[in-house]
Amino acid sequence: MQISSAALLKTSSAATTPPTLAERYRAVRRASMALAAPLTAEDAMVQSMPEASPAKWHLAHTTWFFEQFVLGRQPGYQPLQPQWRALFNSYYQSIGPAHARAQRGLLSRPALSQVLEYRAQVDDRVGQCLRAGTLDGEAQRHLELGLQHEQQHQELLLTDIKHALWSSPLQPAYRDDLSAPPTSPASDAALWIESPERIVEIGAPAWPAHARFAYDNESPRHRVLVPAHALADRPLSNAEYRAFIDDGGYRDPLLWMSDGWAQLQAGQWRRPLYWDEALEREYTLGGWRALDPDAPVCHLSWFEADACARWAGARLPTEFEWEAAASARPPAGNFADAGLLHPKAAPVAGPGVPRQLFGDVWEWTSSAYGAYPGFRPLPGSAGEYNGKFMCGQFVLRGGSCATPAGHVRASYRNFFPPAARWQFGGLRLARDI
Amino acid sequence: MQISSAALLKTSSAATTPPTLAERYRAVRRASMALAAPLTAEDAMVQSMPEASPAKWHLAHTTWFFEQFVLGRQPGYQPLQPQWRALFNSYYQSIGPAHARAQRGLLSRPALSQVLEYRAQVDDRVGQCLRAGTLDGEAQRHLELGLQHEQQHQELLLTDIKHALWSSPLQPAYRDDLSAPPTSPASDAALWIESPERIVEIGAPAWPAHARFAYDNESPRHRVLVPAHALADRPLSNAEYRAFIDDGGYRDPLLWMSDGWAQLQAGQWRRPLYWDEALEREYTLGGWRALDPDAPVCHLSWFEADACARWAGARLPTEFEWEAAASARPPAGNFADAGLLHPKAAPVAGPGVPRQLFGDVWEWTSSAYGAYPGFRPLPGSAGEYNGKFMCGQFVLRGGSCATPAGHVRASYRNFFPPAARWQFGGLRLARDI
Amino acid sequence: MQISSAALLKTSSAATTPPTLAERYRAVRRASMALAAPLTAEDAMVQSMPEASPAKWHLAHTTWFFEQFVLGRQPGYQPLQPQWRALFNSYYQSIGPAHARAQRGLLSRPALSQVLEYRAQVDDRVGQCLRAGTLDGEAQRHLELGLQHEQQHQELLLTDIKHALWSSPLQPAYRDDLSAPPTSPASDAALWIESPERIVEIGAPAWPAHARFAYDNESPRHRVLVPAHALADRPLSNAEYRAFIDDGGYRDPLLWMSDGWAQLQAGQWRRPLYWDEALEREYTLGGWRALDPDAPVCHLSWFEADACARWAGARLPTEFEWEAAASARPPAGNFADAGLLHPKAAPVAGPGVPRQLFGDVWEWTSSAYGAYPGFRPLPGSAGEYNGKFMCGQFVLRGGSCATPAGHVRASYRNFFPPAARWQFGGLRLARDI
Amino acid sequence: MQISSAALLKTSSAATTPPTLAERYRAVRRASMALAAPLTAEDAMVQSMPEASPAKWHLAHTTWFFEQFVLGRQPGYQPLQPQWRALFNSYYQSIGPAHARAQRGLLSRPALSQVLEYRAQVDDRVGQCLRAGTLDGEAQRHLELGLQHEQQHQELLLTDIKHALWSSPLQPAYRDDLSAPPTSPASDAALWIESPERIVEIGAPAWPAHARFAYDNESPRHRVLVPAHALADRPLSNAEYRAFIDDGGYRDPLLWMSDGWAQLQAGQWRRPLYWDEALEREYTLGGWRALDPDAPVCHLSWFEADACARWAGARLPTEFEWEAAASARPPAGNFADAGLLHPKAAPVAGPGVPRQLFGDVWEWTSSAYGAYPGFRPLPGSAGEYNGKFMCGQFVLRGGSCATPAGHVRASYRNFFPPAARWQFGGLRLARDI
Repeated sequence: MQISSAALLKTSSAATTPPTLAERYRAVRRASMALAAPLTAEDAMVQSMPEASPAKWHLAHTTWFFEQFVLGRQPGYQPLQPQWRALFNSYYQSIGPAHARAQRGLLSRPALSQVLEYRAQVDDRVGQCLRAGTLDGEAQRHLELGLQHEQQHQELLLTDIKHALWSSPLQPAYRDDLSAPPTSPASDAALWIESPERIVEIGAPAWPAHARFAYDNESPRHRVLVPAHALADRPLSNAEYRAFIDDGGYRDPLLWMSDGWAQLQAGQWRRPLYWDEALEREYTLGGWRALDPDAPVCHLSWFEADACARWAGARLPTEFEWEAAASARPPAGNFADAGLLHPKAAPVAGPGVPRQLFGDVWEWTSSAYGAYPGFRPLPGSAGEYNGKFMCGQFVLRGGSCATPAGHVRASYRNFFPPAARWQFGGLRLARDI
Repeated sequence: MQISSAALLKTSSAATTPPTLAERYRAVRRASMALAAPLTAEDAMVQSMPEASPAKWHLAHTTWFFEQFVLGRQPGYQPLQPQWRALFNSYYQSIGPAHARAQRGLLSRPALSQVLEYRAQVDDRVGQCLRAGTLDGEAQRHLELGLQHEQQHQELLLTDIKHALWSSPLQPAYRDDLSAPPTSPASDAALWIESPERIVEIGAPAWPAHARFAYDNESPRHRVLVPAHALADRPLSNAEYRAFIDDGGYRDPLLWMSDGWAQLQAGQWRRPLYWDEALEREYTLGGWRALDPDAPVCHLSWFEADACARWAGARLPTEFEWEAAASARPPAGNFADAGLLHPKAAPVAGPGVPRQLFGDVWEWTSSAYGAYPGFRPLPGSAGEYNGKFMCGQFVLRGGSCATPAGHVRASYRNFFPPAARWQFGGLRLARDI
Repeated sequence: MQISSAALLKTSSAATTPPTLAERYRAVRRASMALAAPLTAEDAMVQSMPEASPAKWHLAHTTWFFEQFVLGRQPGYQPLQPQWRALFNSYYQSIGPAHARAQRGLLSRPALSQVLEYRAQVDDRVGQCLRAGTLDGEAQRHLELGLQHEQQHQELLLTDIKHALWSSPLQPAYRDDLSAPPTSPASDAALWIESPERIVEIGAPAWPAHARFAYDNESPRHRVLVPAHALADRPLSNAEYRAFIDDGGYRDPLLWMSDGWAQLQAGQWRRPLYWDEALEREYTLGGWRALDPDAPVCHLSWFEADACARWAGARLPTEFEWEAAASARPPAGNFADAGLLHPKAAPVAGPGVPRQLFGDVWEWTSSAYGAYPGFRPLPGSAGEYNGKFMCGQFVLRGGSCATPAGHVRASYRNFFPPAARWQFGGLRLARDI
Repeated sequence: MQISSAALLKTSSAATTPPTLAERYRAVRRASMALAAPLTAEDAMVQSMPEASPAKWHLAHTTWFFEQFVLGRQPGYQPLQPQWRALFNSYYQSIGPAHARAQRGLLSRPALSQVLEYRAQVDDRVGQCLRAGTLDGEAQRHLELGLQHEQQHQELLLTDIKHALWSSPLQPAYRDDLSAPPTSPASDAALWIESPERIVEIGAPAWPAHARFAYDNESPRHRVLVPAHALADRPLSNAEYRAFIDDGGYRDPLLWMSDGWAQLQAGQWRRPLYWDEALEREYTLGGWRALDPDAPVCHLSWFEADACARWAGARLPTEFEWEAAASARPPAGNFADAGLLHPKAAPVAGPGVPRQLFGDVWEWTSSAYGAYPGFRPLPGSAGEYNGKFMCGQFVLRGGSCATPAGHVRASYRNFFPPAARWQFGGLRLARDI
């Protein structure tokens, strides 16, 4: 691949003035290129399961999104590659046919080099528009949406390539130069942080009416009565999850949802996705490594997180309990920009201060993904972005070590089906008080 | 079948003194026999899909429940048929192995006559215990649970046999002597009933600590902030659903959840489950009949109910909105005891009074089935009754024309996966205000 | 079931004059009733896998065959039950739609009693025609075909009900009054019977041009060059097959066809279909019994027969080798009429005389089922009887303990897919010399 | 890809002295490289269905074969890449585990460049052995087998990449520089060539006992009585097959095997694999082209060939009838070395001389693939090459336009399951006389 492997992952600036839209566009687009840099054209083509996409497809689809939603709304716009319209459409029925999701691994054509050229051409055109100031408000809003969209796909690119390379019999590392996160000097027990019953403002004001970006599924901001409860001050650790396994957690159906038990049997689940059979090592984006007992457990399905919480005499938090705790905290943590691409052990606890709410691992909640009261999808095709997935999935919160810094916030709602475990999903315990 | 076809369905007494436990036991058990009376031994053996069970199995399983949970807790109890223990275990992992659910149609043995004999023997033993007063409190509570359980299976017996007989190429009626519900003199438009934001007490106090029976999934009673909204004063009618179909509702992916659209295509859905292709007739427990335009539409999946509500510019209510409306109303309506076994047109509306909240059709809500804050499953094996199904399903409320009268209440939560449509499921519209 | 359980299985007469067509019709029809006599209506409805049919369906389909092919060719014939035309059509595309094979277990209607009434009505009409002599030659030929057809279904009824009752968790016997076959005083080693290369006349002259009945797939009679070879003088025994198992036969992929090994793994095959895990007992139509080491092994798939022959340093015979040996022998043996319904140990060997070619077990051959040179299917719908199954199956020869006496002959070709093992299939070894 | 696109396909020499084993090794290995030359590393990785393999896998597996069977038998041999042993094992159970066939598309690692390097290293070592004369007889025989094996994979590489590129939504040509075969000046009707009944010597003497190479499945040479029959003097043409389609061939179940009709419905077959819906154009290795009505029809399954022959009032020939006709003819024709990579119209007929027996299209026969009398697999792991596939497949004869020249002979037996149609399969009519 011709792009420089030295490209920066960093997309947020430390400058005192906020970056312009053009600056942000360049930074986000460059970050995708950096993530793809370690991959050969062959690596970038693998689709290891229907739910995961090839890296090349991510690179193309995110570009298609800008062409379709930003450039394409200009009068008389001629698509760069008309026959790619269906190829890189993910699921927008209002735009037209889409190449079947499970068949994305067949796309040897266009070549990765052609996709990179396509990226350059779209970037060039978007750049011209930005410099010329020819993007109307609607186009600018879709450009913003496209940047958020591309950041989501940056994380998907990482989770999907992790699964793809792990699925290869040779199980190569995504990057050989990744250093393992530092271990903790001393592990500590998680502490409970209690909250009384109260009414909490949940969610974000609807964008773009409100200036600050949020997805439509985070709005409207509304009041929720959150009952009294306690929340662990850090995510569950590998050592704690190992105790669940050692105690027969994967052999006791009474700990599991009925569907989870069926899934465990069908998939012969015995441990988190990337752990070895001896429960001592795990496959990471940097290759196989010893498990850090103090790091948050990850690559759990909701079924596993739920069962482990039950075993622990606790439960998963609701997404409202989580957000109530997180909304007062800065969205800082171990994100992709930190360059570890793996969760790390919790920092030392302050009194009553929750740790690692942001970054490290997405935290499964007990909340089924659904619409907030008064939810309105974005108008037009962008309305297909989130709303039509509001059944059969559970909400995860807080971002992970593979999420771009600056992408998530307290009101951010990620969602996956309960059996999915190839994303960086862990858990934080909660209990009724 | 040797039992009298004249047996009464009625299980609730109009007497001024409440029935004793023994009286209720006899009434509930007799009602199951009455439901099975129109069936031959061959009919009672059909399993038309993995989710549905043969009528014979329902008759045996409900009996097994009493033997297992009531008689079986007596010291030294000898099971009547030790080899049936697994056969009629539905899903209680803590009790032992269970015959595979999808294979229940293979059970030509035991014969229906043997199952009826088994019922008589268990009834005899339970009767002796009740007369002798040898049931301790725990046993009495499980007897109560068993009665509730059997009432649930009475409805399942009806929905399952409806599917079984419809699946037969000859499509016979379950009962030839069922008269069609009376039609309405004049159809009327549904009215919206508005409610302001308020905190509502939801659920029921936990039984058996509290004397009045409720399932564990209805408790604890807790406070929920219900936002301002409007609720239709009656369920959606066949005529209204027909307008959705005529307007292309089954051809427009933008109205559907993504999973729902996939299901529609896989199942080639074009109309409710039991409608004919001309949209003029429907298969009922009394055989094929003309559709009553004013009767509530039923045999919808959640996907269809959700899509139709979206088409109507509305949404499904949350289970809390529904309960808030229903908790002030008596749980009366067109239940199985009315003998129609089919929904009927709405009665004339009073001002601002919701109609048909109870009976006629189960009403799909937008609420994913989950645990209430502080939920505790019943102790022991009964804890497997409800809790382990709390993922991937949606809540339905209010009971149907196939539910035994007296079985449901405002806090009652039924649940099914979003693609299920062989139960009597309809919808009531809601909207934000 | 109302028919007498004392009805005779015997359909062949010991009288010196051959039976008339009317006598044979009555005898064959009566034999089916006798086979169904031990079954309840519930037993007669079970379909334990798509390949097997309920006993009730066999009783109805064989009757449908006479109504369709014999009565139905009379001008102006009015079908007894027009809506059963599709229900009991097996696979005759030229006749019209057929109820899906895998859904035959749904047919609680018509009731077994109705099917028996249907049988009586058709028998009555056929009887009238035979007495009145109103059947033309074509109708008489289809009557003959119908009798052969019903005899085939008599065997299928037995094999299918064996599988159905075994599939029931209670595994009842089909008949409690069946005595186990007598054991042999002393087991003896199989002997090889050698044949030099020679041209053999294979097959039967085409019926009905030739008076003696044979299926179209047995004709034309034609010349085949059969190479020099040796054939075992009796089928392989349970003890010999047990040695194959004990020697790791089910664990060594090199003994198996590639497809067979895949099937073994998918089905977790470790032994013949009805053997217990300890390799000591087997399920029979008379219930569970100790294995007779000297009896022919049965309920093998072609894959198992082929692998075991390879392990033994031998091979399966071709169907021509088998027929060359059998054509000089009378088609006598342990057939269904003997009342054992299970294979029995070989009789004492004469010098160079093959034993048990007929009856006991169908013998798998190495011959794929195909058309003989010059093969012509029967004209009309009867042409669908055999020809369209000539791919993907292997030929079995000689009949079994479940075949009606008089039904098979040296040229008779049975056929099943290589993974099928619920029929009474065994093997006889052959080798090149 | 770094190899020259000008490399020659030709592997047979016109020189008067036969090439040495070393010369043949180089030529065959070079030919594979030439076939892969038009492909990018991404193209070479696509697996479009479980039955087809990526081009890269073919390049590696053929090399593995030499390393395993030739180099590996030298004492103390150290494998070049021990971890590739399972990766590129196709199905040799006696050698060890094999990477799952359906998962070959996951192999982004090793890269194509590494596979090419692996080829070079193995070629270097084999070359050294050949020059040093250190290969014993057994190794030389496996080298010969490896060359034959690689030629088979050359054809598979072409058929698999054709399917892969056609499966891509963009449907690029494999080679843009391929010219379409010349059309025929005038089409002519096929003529029948009659043969009387006679005994024919079929097959080839067993190699390596006999010097001339043949696969084990072609031996032993043995006598077969071939009945009187007639054979068409050329394969069926596109125009003739089009008449079958136009006459409703794909809508009449009576023309089809029962399994074929089920397959037609499941796969919604309406025409040969690569034809367009208008029946006017076909996808070729040179891209989309107009159908030549006079060229042999190809990409038919056995089911289609069989149905079309039945429609034509004829049948498929047996493999013996085909071989009897072909054994007197030189194995010359339109092979891959001709550079067309597509069938071409028949040359002008001579009187009674069969045309296009070799090359153009593989000809489906009515013969199920099985063992010849006296068949012995090769000793050792090579015995897994052919014998374990002798069930469920049909024999094809004569080679195709994608077969390397010099690879096939009159006794050569190819085999595929009856539903396979991505290979160049056509048919020649036969009939009984």
